[in-house]
Amino acid sequence: MRIQKHRLLMIPGPTEIGYEALLAMAQPSIRHYGDDYVERHLHVIERLQTVFQTKNTVLMIPGSSSIAMEAAVNGAVEPGQKILVPGGGMFAERFKEMAVNCGAELVSPEVEWCTPLMPEIVADTLDQHPDIRVMAAVHNETSTGVTHPIEDIAEVCREREVSLILDTVTSLGGINVLTDEWGVDYCISGNHKCLESPSGTGLIAVSERAWERMNARKTPIHGWFLNLLNLKEYAERFAQWHPSGPVSQPSHVVAALEVTLDNIVAEGLDNRFRRHALCARACRAGMRAMGIELLAADEYASNTVTAFRIPDGTTDTETLRLMEQEFEIIIAGSHHPRLVGQMLRIGHMGSTADRNCMLLVINALAECFRMQGVKVDAGAAVEAVLAVFRDGED
Amino acid sequence: MRIQKHRLLMIPGPTEIGYEALLAMAQPSIRHYGDDYVERHLHVIERLQTVFQTKNTVLMIPGSSSIAMEAAVNGAVEPGQKILVPGGGMFAERFKEMAVNCGAELVSPEVEWCTPLMPEIVADTLDQHPDIRVMAAVHNETSTGVTHPIEDIAEVCREREVSLILDTVTSLGGINVLTDEWGVDYCISGNHKCLESPSGTGLIAVSERAWERMNARKTPIHGWFLNLLNLKEYAERFAQWHPSGPVSQPSHVVAALEVTLDNIVAEGLDNRFRRHALCARACRAGMRAMGIELLAADEYASNTVTAFRIPDGTTDTETLRLMEQEFEIIIAGSHHPRLVGQMLRIGHMGSTADRNCMLLVINALAECFRMQGVKVDAGAAVEAVLAVFRDGED
Repeated sequence: MRIQKHRLLMIPGPTEIGYEALLAMAQPSIRHYGDDYVERHLHVIERLQTVFQTKNTVLMIPGSSSIAMEAAVNGAVEPGQKILVPGGGMFAERFKEMAVNCGAELVSPEVEWCTPLMPEIVADTLDQHPDIRVMAAVHNETSTGVTHPIEDIAEVCREREVSLILDTVTSLGGINVLTDEWGVDYCISGNHKCLESPSGTGLIAVSERAWERMNARKTPIHGWFLNLLNLKEYAERFAQWHPSGPVSQPSHVVAALEVTLDNIVAEGLDNRFRRHALCARACRAGMRAMGIELLAADEYASNTVTAFRIPDGTTDTETLRLMEQEFEIIIAGSHHPRLVGQMLRIGHMGSTADRNCMLLVINALAECFRMQGVKVDAGAAVEAVLAVFRDGED
Repeated sequence: MRIQKHRLLMIPGPTEIGYEALLAMAQPSIRHYGDDYVERHLHVIERLQTVFQTKNTVLMIPGSSSIAMEAAVNGAVEPGQKILVPGGGMFAERFKEMAVNCGAELVSPEVEWCTPLMPEIVADTLDQHPDIRVMAAVHNETSTGVTHPIEDIAEVCREREVSLILDTVTSLGGINVLTDEWGVDYCISGNHKCLESPSGTGLIAVSERAWERMNARKTPIHGWFLNLLNLKEYAERFAQWHPSGPVSQPSHVVAALEVTLDNIVAEGLDNRFRRHALCARACRAGMRAMGIELLAADEYASNTVTAFRIPDGTTDTETLRLMEQEFEIIIAGSHHPRLVGQMLRIGHMGSTADRNCMLLVINALAECFRMQGVKVDAGAAVEAVLAVFRDGED
């Protein structure tokens, strides 16, 4: 057995997994069907409904978050129909690739990376294209550290009866996601971000309207596995003994997810959102006190990931190397087409949305910059971080 | 944490997982990219090539075995083109559903369940439809306990330059699979059968000819996730840091798979095939000594699963219940459209392809029949099982 060196993951996923969830995975193999599993499965689905804040059908699809993104696009848009996918980050780009590959006609207003998607752009585009009935958007864009004002965007969609596909992969469980209140038709997430679980399934909450629209399609949905109607049909047909759909669920992954969902519900969603917000604010305060430029405006800065420009005189690769080798902390590089090499990102998701982790990562960063010959004020940074926690939410 | 009761899984998957692989999964979270992971990933892919007996590209797709089945069908057949999918079992039916849902025109000669797919039927059908360029077949059909004579079927495909999609989900690692020698263009498998690992990825070995044919398609492959060309393109573009393709790999599942693949290579493929064959022969001998009717002819009986008709006076549900509650052993029910309620199946895959397991399951079955008022000769059964092991491969 290869013993994997552990380093603290302060990246936008995968995130740290608690020991209890790890131990749950070390249990002997069980079937992904039958009474024992059905009980676990239904419990997990119910917990997911709580976390998604929805009464909609929630499906757990073996694979990754992207599988749920594509299942939504594939079901919501018929070939040749238009879909609105505004730009603004790497995962928005992924939605675009999926939409085109599923035969949709893409309408895609440009959005500057690191800036929020404004509801006015969505409204204008939908008004220019009244035949658009589907929009796909990313709630929390980890490539830029921006959380888009999705509440207002969702309102624009509701007013125009446009189906909203929303990627909450890196917000669910860390930032408020109001699936039902916002009227999200396809709300998508994954295990290995703020849910603190191992990767292995894509999660999706599908509204009644979405099912109705899928059932009313003129062309059948392409495929079998990324076909939500097919998955639902099997899940219902097999409900008594194999409710997870037609294929094998990664039952060890689900065992871990059950543990983390129980812990999340025990902590309370509002407490989690406050904890993530506080840590993000502390992170930003610490960075600013070191003179570091943050890439997202405070109003739209993500509570689960902070993107920043590295100081002149340092490089991203050397900073990453020092953080990993000197401090055993992993932070993330850049996907930004124009800022590759100039920016880095700190994830504070799940258990790393934590005071100790914030202090540690700011201290370590200060020292890594100093090792490259750039002196930043670590003391001021620590004071700023502590002050935020001391003041709490005031 | 929910402590899951462990019962011995003698079903056609999921199978028992060794403690070392379970412990590998209990390690802290690591990234599914970066140097540490890349090393593991490449090692796993190399081991998979050994087990598939191939030099072809092997991809590990997050999800389940079915995801790899559909990725193959989706890539190999353009909408409106014909595909040959002979019947004969539940997973053949799945291939048919996938083919139709991907827009292919299905050519599907009936094959009686529990009987082998004969190469002559394949040859005749291909001769009647010279425009068929793709065939999908199941190597080892667990719903019936039949291993189809794929070596001869593959030869028919080779002669006619028909691309062969082969489901080796329940044979790979237990029954000889000669991907390259047979010329299998898309060889598909999964973790949680004879590879003794947790479910979580679909495995596929794709031939050079398959890539060429996909590249030469007139219509682009639908979709993004089940699009092998897209997965390969990303895997190559990201090779240095994220070689597993565009999405998150279930890294804990891969950690376990690495352990089991190392163990499989250490045991030796030929040794494994002999072990599975011997256990299957012992199982059949024991069943026959109890007067139980086996459903597959010996020549085509699977070495990883044995299907049998239950004695008059017993029921499948009561037998399953007694096996589970009195003996803590799980065996499998039926999917056979005409034999539901009349047959059961014993899986002997991976670590349960074992003398002790064979003795135990035969003893337990005899007693469960007796509890239902039907006396079978347990002593004769045990003698028959032991005799097979005593004689070994002679």
